[in-house]
Amino acid sequence: MFGWCTRATILTLLSVMSVTGCGGSAAVPPAAVQTDPLPSWNDGANKKAIITFVDRVTRDGSPDFVPIPERIATFDNDGTLWTEKPLPVQLVFAFDQVKTMAPAHPEWRSTAPFASVLKGDLAAVTAAGEHGILPVIAATHAGMTTDEFSETVHRWITTATDPKTGLLYTARVYQPMLELLAYLRANGFKTFIVSGGGVEFMRPWTDGAYGIPPEQVVGSTGKLKLETHGGRPVLIKLPQIEFIDDKDGKPIGIESRIGRRPIAAFGNSDGDLQMLEWATAGAGLRFALFVHHDDAVREYAYDRADKLATFNLGWNEAVAEGWTVVSMKNDWRVIYPPR
Amino acid sequence: MFGWCTRATILTLLSVMSVTGCGGSAAVPPAAVQTDPLPSWNDGANKKAIITFVDRVTRDGSPDFVPIPERIATFDNDGTLWTEKPLPVQLVFAFDQVKTMAPAHPEWRSTAPFASVLKGDLAAVTAAGEHGILPVIAATHAGMTTDEFSETVHRWITTATDPKTGLLYTARVYQPMLELLAYLRANGFKTFIVSGGGVEFMRPWTDGAYGIPPEQVVGSTGKLKLETHGGRPVLIKLPQIEFIDDKDGKPIGIESRIGRRPIAAFGNSDGDLQMLEWATAGAGLRFALFVHHDDAVREYAYDRADKLATFNLGWNEAVAEGWTVVSMKNDWRVIYPPR
Repeated sequence: MFGWCTRATILTLLSVMSVTGCGGSAAVPPAAVQTDPLPSWNDGANKKAIITFVDRVTRDGSPDFVPIPERIATFDNDGTLWTEKPLPVQLVFAFDQVKTMAPAHPEWRSTAPFASVLKGDLAAVTAAGEHGILPVIAATHAGMTTDEFSETVHRWITTATDPKTGLLYTARVYQPMLELLAYLRANGFKTFIVSGGGVEFMRPWTDGAYGIPPEQVVGSTGKLKLETHGGRPVLIKLPQIEFIDDKDGKPIGIESRIGRRPIAAFGNSDGDLQMLEWATAGAGLRFALFVHHDDAVREYAYDRADKLATFNLGWNEAVAEGWTVVSMKNDWRVIYPPR
Repeated sequence: MFGWCTRATILTLLSVMSVTGCGGSAAVPPAAVQTDPLPSWNDGANKKAIITFVDRVTRDGSPDFVPIPERIATFDNDGTLWTEKPLPVQLVFAFDQVKTMAPAHPEWRSTAPFASVLKGDLAAVTAAGEHGILPVIAATHAGMTTDEFSETVHRWITTATDPKTGLLYTARVYQPMLELLAYLRANGFKTFIVSGGGVEFMRPWTDGAYGIPPEQVVGSTGKLKLETHGGRPVLIKLPQIEFIDDKDGKPIGIESRIGRRPIAAFGNSDGDLQMLEWATAGAGLRFALFVHHDDAVREYAYDRADKLATFNLGWNEAVAEGWTVVSMKNDWRVIYPPR
């Protein structure tokens, strides 16, 4: 009974404040109210579709008005908020961890799939599918406390770099999507990640990278066990999967973790299709957006041109339903944040 | 990168705003800053412990200062935020649903445990333990869509009343705890429910009752299945339990759903003990509080005086650790909100 009016008031203030910004830009004059909220998006139908949607659900008196607490937006992560090629970043982390942990595991030199990882033959590992990847995930993501894992991820993500670009992985986030996240939040939206990635792999860095705090990150989870070490409780990560937050798992994860249906959802692959269908099946105005990876020069081009394409069903439905399909090549002025 | 500074700024504003309130009390003079934030709490060591803790973690320059995003507080629900006697409210709901659904289930008249429920012999049902209760929960909490269940709960919770007091169940929330929730939020805390109750039973009414929105409610969950009905996706509640958010499950639920360790935790039974241990095992100043049900006149007295008492281990540890144990009889001026 206290919360709603408080949140509503705060978020109204937020909408006003976001105009002048936070952290040093308070001197921006009132004229800045008219500033383009999505400067890295080229003008066109897709940018217009985003702005029109936000206007229709937020403007007082609009027939499509949505109260602030119901302005929930969910974002896939890999390929939607940051680059997922040549390999999903969590997999790069896992392979790096195998190398880091190898001195304590001499048997790995002659055991598949670890031997392939240590030789750098990642193609052999990924070609083996689940049999290649799951043992690597189990060995590198279980058998330690949640605090230890979080520290390991934090250490890695703040130092490891993508070989091709030399960038930290968190510098390969999409500048246009950062602007979109900020624009939605400035308009009273609560932004969530709903990703197939491991929730404990993402939480140590999503606040810094996207402004999305741990409690707004939904992802796949492994089983946990409460133990007492030295008189203190710890949570041990077990090698069993508890929940896969992909495909059908995305609406299930949204319902069980968030408990509200998003009014806007953003993805890039068939793993996101059910989430976009779930969001758009609700009553009232809804928004669904797919990011289309078609920029081989500035990022990667792989949708529907790649035999491993993960964006086929999604593409067909997006076209049929009139969802917004963003061309990274044509719609985005820049891909990554300026350095 | 946007979120933190924004949230921090907002919540600072919130602390200021909360003084004058929200929704009609803007005319309160500045002197109201000194108003008692917990008027339904009698003065004494326990009230002082709460206020001292909040002051130490929020005051600029305090050696115990905690940044706003880390001010996470978790609350058990049954017996901590509302009355759980003579039966947990979710169980009353389940029994009422059996009666509502009975015309479509003539076989229930001669099948245990449904026959006992229909005859009003609830003692027989609860005496049978899991064998009595689980079939009732399965029959009344599964086999429908999540939207249908949510509507059923909403209809029930806004009309059903407790026979003894004639009160709506949501009027049997504890006024002192409502003040505590508001006081914490006014000081930048994010308040969560972490309850053994079903998450989908709680979410339809926790925002109205406590100001805690659906996405800040963690609870036990049943399995869900995505299906398509009439061309639209629906989530079907299955009769299998997925996660029990009680005892060891509370730290696990906190880690998997919230992803931050609370700095303050509130409970009333042994089912909450692990949550309070988890909260207090973190670095820095922590706060743990047990509500002790010792007021047979205004509510119920059942801890340690009842052979079904659920507060034994918790009591011993609370005393040993110096946690705050609140006497409903002595510490609370009123129990329920004024009508």
